Amino acid sequence: MVSRRDFLKGASLAGVAATAATVSKVAMAALPEIISVSDADTQAPHMPDTGRPYNPVVTLNGWTLPWRMRNGVKEFHLVAEPVVRELAPGMKAHLWGYNGQSPGPTIEVVEGDRVRIYVTNRLPEHTSMHWHGQRLPNGMDGVTGLTQPGIKPGKTFAYEFVAQRAGTFMYHPHADEMTQMAMGMMGFWVTHPKNPATMAVDRDFVFLINAYDIDPGAYTPRINTMLNFNLWTFNSRVFPGISPMVVNQGDRVRIRVGNLSMTNHPIHIHGHEFMVTGTDGGWVPPSARWPEVTTDIAVGQMRALEFKADAPGDWAFHCHKSHHTMNAMGHDVPTMLGVEQRDLKQQLQGLLPDYMAMGQHGMADMAEMQMPLPDNTLPMMSGQGQFGGVEMGGMFTTVKIRKGIAKHDYRDPGHYQHPAGTVAWEVENDLPPVERPADTDAHGGVEVQVRKPGDHMQH
Amino acid sequence: MVSRRDFLKGASLAGVAATAATVSKVAMAALPEIISVSDADTQAPHMPDTGRPYNPVVTLNGWTLPWRMRNGVKEFHLVAEPVVRELAPGMKAHLWGYNGQSPGPTIEVVEGDRVRIYVTNRLPEHTSMHWHGQRLPNGMDGVTGLTQPGIKPGKTFAYEFVAQRAGTFMYHPHADEMTQMAMGMMGFWVTHPKNPATMAVDRDFVFLINAYDIDPGAYTPRINTMLNFNLWTFNSRVFPGISPMVVNQGDRVRIRVGNLSMTNHPIHIHGHEFMVTGTDGGWVPPSARWPEVTTDIAVGQMRALEFKADAPGDWAFHCHKSHHTMNAMGHDVPTMLGVEQRDLKQQLQGLLPDYMAMGQHGMADMAEMQMPLPDNTLPMMSGQGQFGGVEMGGMFTTVKIRKGIAKHDYRDPGHYQHPAGTVAWEVENDLPPVERPADTDAHGGVEVQVRKPGDHMQH
Amino acid sequence: MVSRRDFLKGASLAGVAATAATVSKVAMAALPEIISVSDADTQAPHMPDTGRPYNPVVTLNGWTLPWRMRNGVKEFHLVAEPVVRELAPGMKAHLWGYNGQSPGPTIEVVEGDRVRIYVTNRLPEHTSMHWHGQRLPNGMDGVTGLTQPGIKPGKTFAYEFVAQRAGTFMYHPHADEMTQMAMGMMGFWVTHPKNPATMAVDRDFVFLINAYDIDPGAYTPRINTMLNFNLWTFNSRVFPGISPMVVNQGDRVRIRVGNLSMTNHPIHIHGHEFMVTGTDGGWVPPSARWPEVTTDIAVGQMRALEFKADAPGDWAFHCHKSHHTMNAMGHDVPTMLGVEQRDLKQQLQGLLPDYMAMGQHGMADMAEMQMPLPDNTLPMMSGQGQFGGVEMGGMFTTVKIRKGIAKHDYRDPGHYQHPAGTVAWEVENDLPPVERPADTDAHGGVEVQVRKPGDHMQH
Repeated sequence: MVSRRDFLKGASLAGVAATAATVSKVAMAALPEIISVSDADTQAPHMPDTGRPYNPVVTLNGWTLPWRMRNGVKEFHLVAEPVVRELAPGMKAHLWGYNGQSPGPTIEVVEGDRVRIYVTNRLPEHTSMHWHGQRLPNGMDGVTGLTQPGIKPGKTFAYEFVAQRAGTFMYHPHADEMTQMAMGMMGFWVTHPKNPATMAVDRDFVFLINAYDIDPGAYTPRINTMLNFNLWTFNSRVFPGISPMVVNQGDRVRIRVGNLSMTNHPIHIHGHEFMVTGTDGGWVPPSARWPEVTTDIAVGQMRALEFKADAPGDWAFHCHKSHHTMNAMGHDVPTMLGVEQRDLKQQLQGLLPDYMAMGQHGMADMAEMQMPLPDNTLPMMSGQGQFGGVEMGGMFTTVKIRKGIAKHDYRDPGHYQHPAGTVAWEVENDLPPVERPADTDAHGGVEVQVRKPGDHMQH
Repeated sequence: MVSRRDFLKGASLAGVAATAATVSKVAMAALPEIISVSDADTQAPHMPDTGRPYNPVVTLNGWTLPWRMRNGVKEFHLVAEPVVRELAPGMKAHLWGYNGQSPGPTIEVVEGDRVRIYVTNRLPEHTSMHWHGQRLPNGMDGVTGLTQPGIKPGKTFAYEFVAQRAGTFMYHPHADEMTQMAMGMMGFWVTHPKNPATMAVDRDFVFLINAYDIDPGAYTPRINTMLNFNLWTFNSRVFPGISPMVVNQGDRVRIRVGNLSMTNHPIHIHGHEFMVTGTDGGWVPPSARWPEVTTDIAVGQMRALEFKADAPGDWAFHCHKSHHTMNAMGHDVPTMLGVEQRDLKQQLQGLLPDYMAMGQHGMADMAEMQMPLPDNTLPMMSGQGQFGGVEMGGMFTTVKIRKGIAKHDYRDPGHYQHPAGTVAWEVENDLPPVERPADTDAHGGVEVQVRKPGDHMQH
Repeated sequence: MVSRRDFLKGASLAGVAATAATVSKVAMAALPEIISVSDADTQAPHMPDTGRPYNPVVTLNGWTLPWRMRNGVKEFHLVAEPVVRELAPGMKAHLWGYNGQSPGPTIEVVEGDRVRIYVTNRLPEHTSMHWHGQRLPNGMDGVTGLTQPGIKPGKTFAYEFVAQRAGTFMYHPHADEMTQMAMGMMGFWVTHPKNPATMAVDRDFVFLINAYDIDPGAYTPRINTMLNFNLWTFNSRVFPGISPMVVNQGDRVRIRVGNLSMTNHPIHIHGHEFMVTGTDGGWVPPSARWPEVTTDIAVGQMRALEFKADAPGDWAFHCHKSHHTMNAMGHDVPTMLGVEQRDLKQQLQGLLPDYMAMGQHGMADMAEMQMPLPDNTLPMMSGQGQFGGVEMGGMFTTVKIRKGIAKHDYRDPGHYQHPAGTVAWEVENDLPPVERPADTDAHGGVEVQVRKPGDHMQH
């Protein structure tokens, strides 16, 4: 049991403080301490030590920002700055974020709290902060030019309002939005209800959907990509870098997901049905709910999914667009299905020194073989399960449901132990052997398209 | 009446058996018979001959897989294999599917049935089967690596579970998903309620949305396309190859649509409002329903649309994205609106031997003229109605509502006979004649972009 | 007060007639007068002078088409024709529309009205008119080939039906749809309830979402673009060319939005929650409503958003996809974040005579500097607020909520005057100065991609 504790580094508020990378004591006179986190681990829930009580959330591969109370006001300090984010072991991205990471830390307050947030800009251009979904004075809404001037580099602005409505929110800049959101500037905000019994659940996970376009071997996203992203992320992480969501069997589970990418993401769970019980606009009344296994989350929307974790197992949880559960490919992959590649390989190696025959029998080979990849580049499909390669990437993780998981214990319980007779099994057959697929006979070969190695990868 | 019977080839279960392309008697000892279909016709509803009764569905351009009962278990046999699918008369695609076609056959069972499905892999790479939306043991969930090993080529796996929840489901691989789904591997699953009166309707149609990217003249889809598909399909068929949905006036109609493409499809009906009454997560309670004429179906979602077929006629039913009701174009079409093309044509023919002036007055000309197309390529817009060219392709068909259509009769009743005075009519006018459009005068000509004939078509 | 009246040019029905560009008296014998509008201003609500009373809507940057009563039938005359549409000051597009503008005028009728619409075709190819969402005889549905022949150039067709269902509708061609909708042919239709108290609101705005792909410096949209549009529009206008929605504090406000582009648009409001109370299929029952701050509107869908305008201010209202609140860029923008550009600039100016260093510190510089742009091209981000540049384009406008706005007064009240202490404020800090971003140190420079000036811009 003890060794499992290693999963959650910084498993307490003290732990968060311990990983703080930057503490500027000089500024302490007026501004709250700057607390930063340098890694992408999922932090333990932040138990409120001051202010009113609430049931804390767990941010997938993220953390909650501590605050200080001053004259009855909850004060937070966000610092917009360049950060290095590990997307998964083997790849780091140079993003813009808050307090050491992208996304920034989750802010948790209680309905009725008066909140003051200091936002310091350590970026090379001006920024602002929009509190998406909140009821607040117009001048606190954070739209550069319209409701406030931009926060110039080196400067700090204060925002103050009462968290009037319990619910789920996001924060992000409303200044040079294309650039700043493409670079990863965003964070989650939860306003807990005054009465902790309202809409209470046993486990409450939160994360943001985002996406990046980073050329293989590069570190910095292209900021002007509109559609052809190649790294589809949950909280700026890709599989197998995304934590599992660990749940006790029988728990009522809520997963709150906000989308700040450029397209819809249909979020799908295996083995269970859920209902959407809330949005960034409020709770969905029971009469208006219906069961789903996939809910489409549009850009700028937040959805709270709730379900009872009935069935034990390791259940896939992912975006259902098949390209969003893969990572960037080293180059464009032609359809080689059924093509005999021996001769072709020789011919192509003249053109492409790093060419290797692939895809003749589909792409699953690629998940098993070790292709040479550029530095700082993830394989297209990866991840190991107890039965072999999982062949996934991007927006994929698992909900791990087990008997006997203690409250507030979020440590990875390892692979699910299947009861005997409950796994799909191989049966004998005496069917004729598989031959070369009929389709290649039918039209005498498949077209082969080759692109130059320098071409932009696009899947 | 008799001649109309030709529409439904194989209009009975016997008919399905009669079209079986492959029956391996050797394997009969242990595995259920392999039943295959070689064409893309809509088959008559499958009346259950064993097991409990239910109201069968009709699969658009598809069929329901027969089963055998063994010791109280319903046993099905699916075979993953390369198939040839006619997308519409004039074009065949080389896909991967099940039991002779793509999509595979629909599976229909009854709530509470114990079901065993044998999956044989005749593809050149491993595969698996995921039973999208089902409650089942974790080890039957079909995620390669995570819940089972892949099914290697030539091998057969068995899956077994109780169909616990009545509703609508899909099946597809969870192994090398990008490739296998881009190649057409998917199928529909309906679990009928124990009580046939529950949510009963008069007509119950089902189909899957999918999409392919096949270069003009080619047969095999590009498997790595993320966005720029050029063949938008209902059950791997395009207009005018999609069957009409034939309905008796006054019928309560359900159309269940699942989306396994890479983008949302807003499905639209003319002349009627519908409500979404179910998803792959279950039925939508009456309090949560609202009327629509277009419902957006996200990837990995299923929607059951229900409406009363009040109004007789031939009503369009289609995806509302205008490019999804067209087929692939021979090459990229520049904006030539209003450009005098006589001189240009001569100039271009030096560059492009197959150039023909087009689009000077819009694209409707193209639907009427016979452009030379590569072999195995469909025109961009086609289909003939009683008033001329329908100028459609892709995800377009009709709901044909008539008085006096008998129960279980799905044969095409031909064109709707409009009562006198109910068709839009031409009126005399003495307006001045149409001149060369003003816009070309305003800026002295329109830019002309020409691409090389070999360029990848993208609309 | 008097000077504010200038905002609404043609602020009455007489005003609309006064701006009529084309009145063909010759045709008056049989056809209703042709009424055209030549500019893109928001017209005052059209108070019904004949027929039954209703609460009129306001079309954003549009107008309502007057009618004539003849023998109890409401007769409208729509003319399909090439038009010049100002997208925002500084850019005109050559589109196809109706009665002088694109979108065409809004049609407003009352539930139970018998309606006859004459459609004259002044385009160079045939067209038709589909009355999206209406219950009507099949032959009035406007699908070329299927339910009627196309309307040839110079010809006029009549459509006649009873507006059976109160609600919100659209009209658009169902002939050569890709071309005709990409060129801007569409319009709004509202059928008011018989009883004006049904679903009554204080302000009722309507507009359509559409999108164009116009190369910088060009006037005519590319008609075959499927995804890479560069001008994202509300009623064929972009920010800062879109009118604000002016509202009295405490008003119940409805905004009806129809989408006839090629992708989903998540429409977002600041500072308020709304409910979707209606679709093109009908009203949403109260039991089925839930609160939102962003609703995703799919292609071919209409959504009526309703909220109480509680909070005074200038509240942003926009599509939440960040690229949809920008206009086309002059050329593709590489990621230059953190790159020292002095040397690079010299080197690039050899390759690109019009090169200027940009984006070194993000893109906000671009909104402030005056880049040389091709004629008839809008800056990527623009608009001035009381606090500086708003850095927006495309699908962005404001809801301006003030105390004391009179009924039917829609004139821009100017910038919001914030009460003291309600605007985010700069605070002193003694944090260390911002240095060159850490990320460039980490990997020794950022990749620089340069494209040729002639490359197609795509963001």
